[in-house]
Amino acid sequence: MPIRTGPVVVPAAVIKRLPMYYRYLQVLVDEGLERISSRELSQLMGITSSQLRQDLSYFGEFGQQGYGYKVTELYQAICEILGLEKQYKTVLVGVGNLGRALINYQGFSRRGLNLKGIFDNNPAIIGENINGFTVRSVEELRPYLQKEGIQIGVITTPASAAQEIADILIAGGVTGIWNFAPQHISTLEDVIVENTHIGDGLLSLFFKMKHQERLELK
Amino acid sequence: MPIRTGPVVVPAAVIKRLPMYYRYLQVLVDEGLERISSRELSQLMGITSSQLRQDLSYFGEFGQQGYGYKVTELYQAICEILGLEKQYKTVLVGVGNLGRALINYQGFSRRGLNLKGIFDNNPAIIGENINGFTVRSVEELRPYLQKEGIQIGVITTPASAAQEIADILIAGGVTGIWNFAPQHISTLEDVIVENTHIGDGLLSLFFKMKHQERLELK
Repeated sequence: MPIRTGPVVVPAAVIKRLPMYYRYLQVLVDEGLERISSRELSQLMGITSSQLRQDLSYFGEFGQQGYGYKVTELYQAICEILGLEKQYKTVLVGVGNLGRALINYQGFSRRGLNLKGIFDNNPAIIGENINGFTVRSVEELRPYLQKEGIQIGVITTPASAAQEIADILIAGGVTGIWNFAPQHISTLEDVIVENTHIGDGLLSLFFKMKHQERLELK
Repeated sequence: MPIRTGPVVVPAAVIKRLPMYYRYLQVLVDEGLERISSRELSQLMGITSSQLRQDLSYFGEFGQQGYGYKVTELYQAICEILGLEKQYKTVLVGVGNLGRALINYQGFSRRGLNLKGIFDNNPAIIGENINGFTVRSVEELRPYLQKEGIQIGVITTPASAAQEIADILIAGGVTGIWNFAPQHISTLEDVIVENTHIGDGLLSLFFKMKHQERLELK
């Protein structure tokens, strides 16, 4: 199934829905489902079927009129669109509670994240073993990045340390940063920063509880 | 500043941006900035100024031609739109690494989340003290909810336990659920569920690293 690789710009809203497609299709693959109509799949995900078809049209021709989608084929295509056929060498910096939660998360390697090293600046935990990884000193970070050819850095430090760590990661050749610190990170143009603001979900919840009557989908 | 409370439906995409407005304005308030133009504010947030004005138009009249926005006034309006003038009594269920990260997070009470109790089913940690909260047994959850008048439940259990916990929360009168378990939760119609899938950020990062040339904003 060919992936269109032309210069068509993909709207940010479409990019945001791709992880949802991946999650739902992964469950359907695991359940052994062979095919699904665009109506069924869109209902499952709480979007319209025209939205689903339009989103997928950015990436190629999927599904057949009257037949629907082959689940495994669509899942594999989404994986390819997302770049999950690669394995990215990754470090995590900041081994607090959130860092530990991520280090222990089972789903990362399935998604192509190859965690190589974990770092902190707290002498009390340097040397500690977490899920098979030994906590290293941040002082070792810079040389480690180049020696191991690290591509992605995950920042789970306090806000005050995030930019300094990002600077080290970028100087060491990292091209993708997954930032959990509540701090805007400035980078070079060719470094991608993805910010995950966990607390945003709480604000959305509050809003929806207050304005139930004004929501598109109840 | 009046908040329009009519039946105008707010698009999901606008709701998703509200937490970002809150975050940026909070920083500007903390920095003591008095006013900001819609151009400056939109540039800071990486959206167009027409987008900003259109988003805010769902909630009332903000800013003045040639003057811009009064920062504190806009921040307070966003807080009111988000429902942050209330305090929501909350429990958290599932005291693993992610649960601990949330319990230790300083930003919750500022955002109106009043954490009252934390629960787990692991005898090894029941009774443990975390950031001033004692871990209670899940068996105490149902009566606790009604006695304390709990409004929000945060689920940080494994996927396999999430629906069972949600059922207890709903039976106990909770009207909002913030779900971190990678599991779809079925609820009654008047219960709001906000899902936070932390791993989605990783997939977005992979996509952007692979398709740099197809992004709207570099």
